[in-house]
Amino acid sequence: MHILDLIIKKREHQKLTKEEISFFVQGVTDGTLPDYQISALLMAIFLNGMDAEEITHLTMDMANSGARFDLSAVQGFKVDKHSTGGVADTTTLILAPLVASVGVPVVKMSGRGLGFSGGTIDKLESIPGFCVSVDEAQAIALAQKSHLVLMGQTENLTPADKKLYALRDVTGTVESLPLIAASIMSKKIAAGANGIVLDVKCGSGAFMKTLEDAQALARIMVEIGKRVGQKVSAVISGMDQPLGSHIGNSLEVMEAISILRGEVGGDLLEVALLLGAHMLLLAERAETIAEGKALLQQQIANGQGLAKLRELLIQQGGNPAVLEDFSLLPLSPCTHILTAAQDGYLTKINTAKIGQAAQATGAGRVYKEQPLDYGAGIIMKKRLGDIITKGEPLAVLYSATEERCASAGNILADALTISDTPMPLPPLVLDTISYRQSE
Amino acid sequence: MHILDLIIKKREHQKLTKEEISFFVQGVTDGTLPDYQISALLMAIFLNGMDAEEITHLTMDMANSGARFDLSAVQGFKVDKHSTGGVADTTTLILAPLVASVGVPVVKMSGRGLGFSGGTIDKLESIPGFCVSVDEAQAIALAQKSHLVLMGQTENLTPADKKLYALRDVTGTVESLPLIAASIMSKKIAAGANGIVLDVKCGSGAFMKTLEDAQALARIMVEIGKRVGQKVSAVISGMDQPLGSHIGNSLEVMEAISILRGEVGGDLLEVALLLGAHMLLLAERAETIAEGKALLQQQIANGQGLAKLRELLIQQGGNPAVLEDFSLLPLSPCTHILTAAQDGYLTKINTAKIGQAAQATGAGRVYKEQPLDYGAGIIMKKRLGDIITKGEPLAVLYSATEERCASAGNILADALTISDTPMPLPPLVLDTISYRQSE
Repeated sequence: MHILDLIIKKREHQKLTKEEISFFVQGVTDGTLPDYQISALLMAIFLNGMDAEEITHLTMDMANSGARFDLSAVQGFKVDKHSTGGVADTTTLILAPLVASVGVPVVKMSGRGLGFSGGTIDKLESIPGFCVSVDEAQAIALAQKSHLVLMGQTENLTPADKKLYALRDVTGTVESLPLIAASIMSKKIAAGANGIVLDVKCGSGAFMKTLEDAQALARIMVEIGKRVGQKVSAVISGMDQPLGSHIGNSLEVMEAISILRGEVGGDLLEVALLLGAHMLLLAERAETIAEGKALLQQQIANGQGLAKLRELLIQQGGNPAVLEDFSLLPLSPCTHILTAAQDGYLTKINTAKIGQAAQATGAGRVYKEQPLDYGAGIIMKKRLGDIITKGEPLAVLYSATEERCASAGNILADALTISDTPMPLPPLVLDTISYRQSE
Repeated sequence: MHILDLIIKKREHQKLTKEEISFFVQGVTDGTLPDYQISALLMAIFLNGMDAEEITHLTMDMANSGARFDLSAVQGFKVDKHSTGGVADTTTLILAPLVASVGVPVVKMSGRGLGFSGGTIDKLESIPGFCVSVDEAQAIALAQKSHLVLMGQTENLTPADKKLYALRDVTGTVESLPLIAASIMSKKIAAGANGIVLDVKCGSGAFMKTLEDAQALARIMVEIGKRVGQKVSAVISGMDQPLGSHIGNSLEVMEAISILRGEVGGDLLEVALLLGAHMLLLAERAETIAEGKALLQQQIANGQGLAKLRELLIQQGGNPAVLEDFSLLPLSPCTHILTAAQDGYLTKINTAKIGQAAQATGAGRVYKEQPLDYGAGIIMKKRLGDIITKGEPLAVLYSATEERCASAGNILADALTISDTPMPLPPLVLDTISYRQSE
């Protein structure tokens, strides 16, 4: 078998066989294929696509390219969740304790933020003492005890994905449905859960800008699950404005804690409950979404969700006192209040740009390995549809320096459109693709 | 400027600017661009194309990537000719002496054969003593004296093309109209002639299999010439059977000499006269194709063409006695006669396969740097449309060993189709695209 034949096949819109895809992933993993041939094939895949069968083979070969995490020692139906990435998208910190608090194990590997979207691992690391480096044996022991582990990726998880992603990043082949689907699903399958809930973000602050693209990605990932015998459901949720009000690492932790305390509601809670309910459905711990949401809401009301988060902090070294005292969390010293320049309605938000403003405060990375300012970020004071009075605060920015505050404020101001007439609000949940529907 | 932006633009079917293409070619030439990004862009160009303006910029940047050959010291309108490659396609050895013999300077750089198509340089090197390594100063001096130089590429001609071709060869991006056109035209423009005649081969023994593809390639190359102020004409000629009867290095030299002696006619002479007449048209040495062909035919009849070839051999070290005595040219010792297995008509020839049979005799290279057997090859005894009697010779093979003869014979037998009913003959010349028509 020769890689050149695979490149030419895909170039000519032909389907690659299981054996050819295995040959490719093997060569990527062991380093025998030169980068220039891998990138030519990636571009041919980008432009000519792959069908569900090819994507499934690619996914499974990537999942098997390293060591898969064996969670069989943890009793129960293990559930995992993945978001394609958004702004103020802190659902994991809310739903993971809630779901675990009803006895459904959540052992979740998360990533770091890059670009305009944040990462759960960074947010957790803003909590003094919290350790995300947990090895497999520790993770299993913790999950057996508390049903909840939030950790970074294990060392040898999907090395083929790491290699391919690094090349995609520099060859203009990131935004490819087959390659995105295989990347996400390979990592989730290798991470060992029995059921996976996908939150496919759609809108101005998401990688998928249109509902059609988001649906296509959601469908193919649910289909991959079906083909490999894994329960997968996908929710397509709106990202035409930041999901929560807090953007930044410690700021998002604060909002999540406030929600688990039962003090804050809104879209972030709504989406967290919906995704959590889907996880309970996969685990057969609820029969309907409504039942699942009610159960999780009860865990907020009775304090069990917050108690589970406390247990998580204690077992992974974080200071549990932050749950009562936010002054123990970092907060950057300089603030800047962005005020409205005119009366009107907040009709449009360029959400990616808000993410960039948060990056500019120091909350996000412009380049990999950039150190974060955990206390930096933005608190949005307004949502789409709100009536705006000239001079009132639209957002508060936190940063290490006045200069950063001001430059982030300029980016932020540019991201908000205030108009004389209101506009229809975008839906919060656009579609749901359940493993049951696709059966 | 960043290469990633260029890749994404081309991936999204957008047009690259003059500055972007220069940035790309510069980075290819100086080695600052990594191969994996070059190959991603090559695949995006392969699949999404380039328009005439982009191809022209690419051509000129490639032409200027090294040292261009300055022929201004040679008086007169210098003409060059390029064939896209075929089997028994020896027109250069015939038309170059004929055209030069009427006083139109021909300073032609040629290449080596690879794959099923032969190369003029290899054919010339089969002549004892002939030296193709001529530097620029020598070439100018020889052209001033005799109007005729046939040489290998100068050292630093179009280094960007060399680099790009090497990558295209291993990334499935060879058969791309924009990349083929830019490769050919950049070399020809850098080689310094005032007018270029292109012989675009079309058929089973050519890279272009369909008339549409051949026309598209011919048109874009003529268009490039127009855009950069260079006279270019293109002839699309048939390659559904070997053009001459002799395939191999010394064998093709013998056929060319026989034609210049006036002893042999046929398709090879016909195409050589046509291409030569186009060269005379470009040089304004003839007013019509008919006049040009008549002039060149007269140079055969009066012996001036053969005399010019003699002058070439003498000035570049070749033994001129080969012109009278073919036994001074190499001929491989083992022969094999392929005979007809049935009565009928020769209705179809897989010409690329005939080229492969010639490779198998030792006349062509399977891999670069492979030493050639200059005396090996095939003499075809039949052409398309010929009536075939069972047992009569179809071809004679020459090789160093009986084994090679036999295995080449098997490939050759497989390339010929003998049927009970005749088929219409394919046309020899399919189309002509002149710089005049496109004005």
